[in-house]
Amino acid sequence: MKHYGLSMMPEKTRRWQMTEIRLNGPCEGNPYTEQHAEAEIISCGEHVHVQGFYDGEGVYLIRFMPIYEGEYQVKVSASFMEPVSGKIQVLEPEEGNHGPVRVCNNAHFAYEDGTPYYSIGTTCYVWLWQTDELIAQTLETLKNSAFNKIRFCVFPKHYNYNLKEPRSYPYEGTPVDSSGLTPENFNQMNQKSEGNDWDFTRFNPVHFRHLDWCIEQLQELGIEADMILFHPYDRWGFSCMGRENDERYLRYMMARYAAYRNVWWSLANEYDILKDKTIADWEYIAQTIVECDPYRHPRSIHNCWAMYDHNRPWITHCSMQRQETYRTAELTTDWRRQYRKPVVLDEICYEGNIQFGWGNISGQEMVRRFWEAAVRGGYPGHGETYLGHNDVLWWSHGGVLHSESHKRFRFLLDVMKETPGIGLRTSPECRWDEVYGIPEDRQLEGTYFLYYYSFMCPSFRTFRLDENSRYQVTVLDTWEMTREDRGVFSGTFNVELPGKPYMAIQIKKV
Amino acid sequence: MKHYGLSMMPEKTRRWQMTEIRLNGPCEGNPYTEQHAEAEIISCGEHVHVQGFYDGEGVYLIRFMPIYEGEYQVKVSASFMEPVSGKIQVLEPEEGNHGPVRVCNNAHFAYEDGTPYYSIGTTCYVWLWQTDELIAQTLETLKNSAFNKIRFCVFPKHYNYNLKEPRSYPYEGTPVDSSGLTPENFNQMNQKSEGNDWDFTRFNPVHFRHLDWCIEQLQELGIEADMILFHPYDRWGFSCMGRENDERYLRYMMARYAAYRNVWWSLANEYDILKDKTIADWEYIAQTIVECDPYRHPRSIHNCWAMYDHNRPWITHCSMQRQETYRTAELTTDWRRQYRKPVVLDEICYEGNIQFGWGNISGQEMVRRFWEAAVRGGYPGHGETYLGHNDVLWWSHGGVLHSESHKRFRFLLDVMKETPGIGLRTSPECRWDEVYGIPEDRQLEGTYFLYYYSFMCPSFRTFRLDENSRYQVTVLDTWEMTREDRGVFSGTFNVELPGKPYMAIQIKKV
Repeated sequence: MKHYGLSMMPEKTRRWQMTEIRLNGPCEGNPYTEQHAEAEIISCGEHVHVQGFYDGEGVYLIRFMPIYEGEYQVKVSASFMEPVSGKIQVLEPEEGNHGPVRVCNNAHFAYEDGTPYYSIGTTCYVWLWQTDELIAQTLETLKNSAFNKIRFCVFPKHYNYNLKEPRSYPYEGTPVDSSGLTPENFNQMNQKSEGNDWDFTRFNPVHFRHLDWCIEQLQELGIEADMILFHPYDRWGFSCMGRENDERYLRYMMARYAAYRNVWWSLANEYDILKDKTIADWEYIAQTIVECDPYRHPRSIHNCWAMYDHNRPWITHCSMQRQETYRTAELTTDWRRQYRKPVVLDEICYEGNIQFGWGNISGQEMVRRFWEAAVRGGYPGHGETYLGHNDVLWWSHGGVLHSESHKRFRFLLDVMKETPGIGLRTSPECRWDEVYGIPEDRQLEGTYFLYYYSFMCPSFRTFRLDENSRYQVTVLDTWEMTREDRGVFSGTFNVELPGKPYMAIQIKKV
Repeated sequence: MKHYGLSMMPEKTRRWQMTEIRLNGPCEGNPYTEQHAEAEIISCGEHVHVQGFYDGEGVYLIRFMPIYEGEYQVKVSASFMEPVSGKIQVLEPEEGNHGPVRVCNNAHFAYEDGTPYYSIGTTCYVWLWQTDELIAQTLETLKNSAFNKIRFCVFPKHYNYNLKEPRSYPYEGTPVDSSGLTPENFNQMNQKSEGNDWDFTRFNPVHFRHLDWCIEQLQELGIEADMILFHPYDRWGFSCMGRENDERYLRYMMARYAAYRNVWWSLANEYDILKDKTIADWEYIAQTIVECDPYRHPRSIHNCWAMYDHNRPWITHCSMQRQETYRTAELTTDWRRQYRKPVVLDEICYEGNIQFGWGNISGQEMVRRFWEAAVRGGYPGHGETYLGHNDVLWWSHGGVLHSESHKRFRFLLDVMKETPGIGLRTSPECRWDEVYGIPEDRQLEGTYFLYYYSFMCPSFRTFRLDENSRYQVTVLDTWEMTREDRGVFSGTFNVELPGKPYMAIQIKKV
């Protein structure tokens, strides 16, 4: 018998840093079900219990994320050893680490250190289950982009343009034979478990070590990892494992990933088309996450057709898919009023040219939807579905970006960051033919206005502001990404515009 | 005392031709209120009573429109003469005269001879009250356009860009002083009668003779005259004359214009912002028109914000103004289901660059709205509001067209005319990401499909049609106005597209 016990506990770590304690333990039998490890993490500011998990080859890991600086006491116990204690010094966070993202003002996000977080998301469902080369390309693309959130799946994806096998599977076992799949017949296998042979009590450490690495890469890039825990595009049976296996999976995920500051939980992509799950199942899943994630990461659930009841208390923010063919981002104001939670537009169609209407809008239309959402204080998300690049579509596989829209998001993000306080809201005084955002913070009312004219092409607009205040006026071309300073005005004044679409006017009280 | 009596009754006329009988009568006193003239018009097919009207200088006119060919008996009577009778031969209509437009299929229009009428409208509110030169230019523009309907006002218009006096007034009297009007202050005078001095019992024949001439010019061009009887943009008090004066005006209009085959009655532009009128007033107006128009011309009432109840039996077709900032033409399907009447989109914003959101959409967006309406079996209307042409805006004044959209309507009209039977309806089998029209006539189902992809940019679409039929496929670029024959297909097939917006696919069973 090998020596069981603590093999590594760090002396020092940093605030909001995933911190890992390693134990040696048995690899005989089924360590996933027969053993357990956990720790109590105590500082003057917090006292949390975290569960460890088995990482294969006799290694057990316990992860936590210290929320405070200073001395932490750590008490480790496990089924295979006597309890041990230790102390870990938590230093200030490294440069650029602002902590996990939290909801604030019932409508917006900020990092835990108070820095506003203006989400500019993208979706690459299974970028991390591609080849090393493609993954490296995706990370390089992300590094040079404005994206600060990415949605992706823990499980592989089965769909048109997604018929290959993933680089690894989450469980030990063998997958169904996929050699006869074509774009015409693939749907017959969807959400069926037949032909697969998985041991749902044995996770595949290779799959999850790779996921660790991907989350760490995203963290280095300052990108939030919005992880989709379940989804309907599945031929391996992961969408219909049954409640017991779902719960084991969720507990493993929470133990393994809750300590990463950049993790978000998306319970599902398109929960409403998972045939095997009921609302009661989703509520049970939610309850398990709430119970097992001591760090309260953002939690959402994404619809296909019917929205989930975003009033549910465990939902931290609304994760929206387009609701109509012709409008979506424009509905942000209504959704904010209805739910009083941040509105994240995780799918407002993809820029591209595939055959499906959800995947073939133009760059102009995508950027328009981004601005429509942003001036209303919503948080838009991008995606791309361009054919013609060896069937590598950013939407699922990552790679390089081919869109026109993504080039324009840094400009938007820069403008969003100029908002006084944290976040915009739709002015209640908007006329029907203009939308403008004002600061969410009531105390800052009257100091800032961001007007957006969408597809409208006015050659001027008239403003009626306070006679006794002075306002700096800047005209923004959201497509060309230009800013034109128009000087300082008071009272009633006209602002000339070029009579073309996609213009915005930013007005700051000086 | 002069000789009173019949001064002219034609021996011959043509079917659906405005036919006029002239009487000499008194000009003393107030002929409008003190005299009357009328005729009974009898053929083997019809027996109608028509009212005459006073046209000034002792002349009384009685107008009718024979619906049948053959011999008509005419019995004329008047307060100032003994009755006289005569016979008029009605010949076949001249080339190109298809009769008045009628509703058919509860959804579409056809001329009385059965020729389908696919309405492509425009709006020039007061083109006819401009200078001779501008009117001539407008008519020349219309002649070279695809428009076959025009909306305009009987009364002059008071609004921004409409502050000048009209060429004539409908009544004897003097207008309020307008010399101090500016774009900033004009609204203070709106819908007020103060300062005007009109005799509402005395029409101004100069005004109406000019209107006659304009309607005749339109008729020669094959254009329906959609006449707006009341409207809210008024500093002369014509919007608030009271019920007695309204009724006198309506009876005069019916007597004078019902005999023109190309006349439509639009009770109001933006009925809901006429401060002086209630729903009871509108119903009274409708009742008067129904009573006094023997030829049952199309009748509608146009909204600003709140739609009128288009279920009212006197309404022949829905005359819609945009209902939302971001959608309107897309609502055609719903409106057709709701009202089971033709849906005419008389205002879906104007292409242009003025400061108001209703008047600054792009050419692309206008053409998109036209196609969205047309494939659903609705009838779109155009308008233009381009600044920079000496304050002559097509929207109100006519003149020349500056838009990009109007150049593309002939192409659409030609496609509409290829519909088998009369008119399209939205297929009940449309998926969310495509809209397509099929023949209104159930017997022609399966013979014709018109798909429209709007802002979506697919690089191909898959069709699943009958294996045992053959279909001619044509790809239409609705913006570039090109047609590309793609050959004949059966069963399931793909159609390649260029991955850009505004594409359509026409499929005809061969």
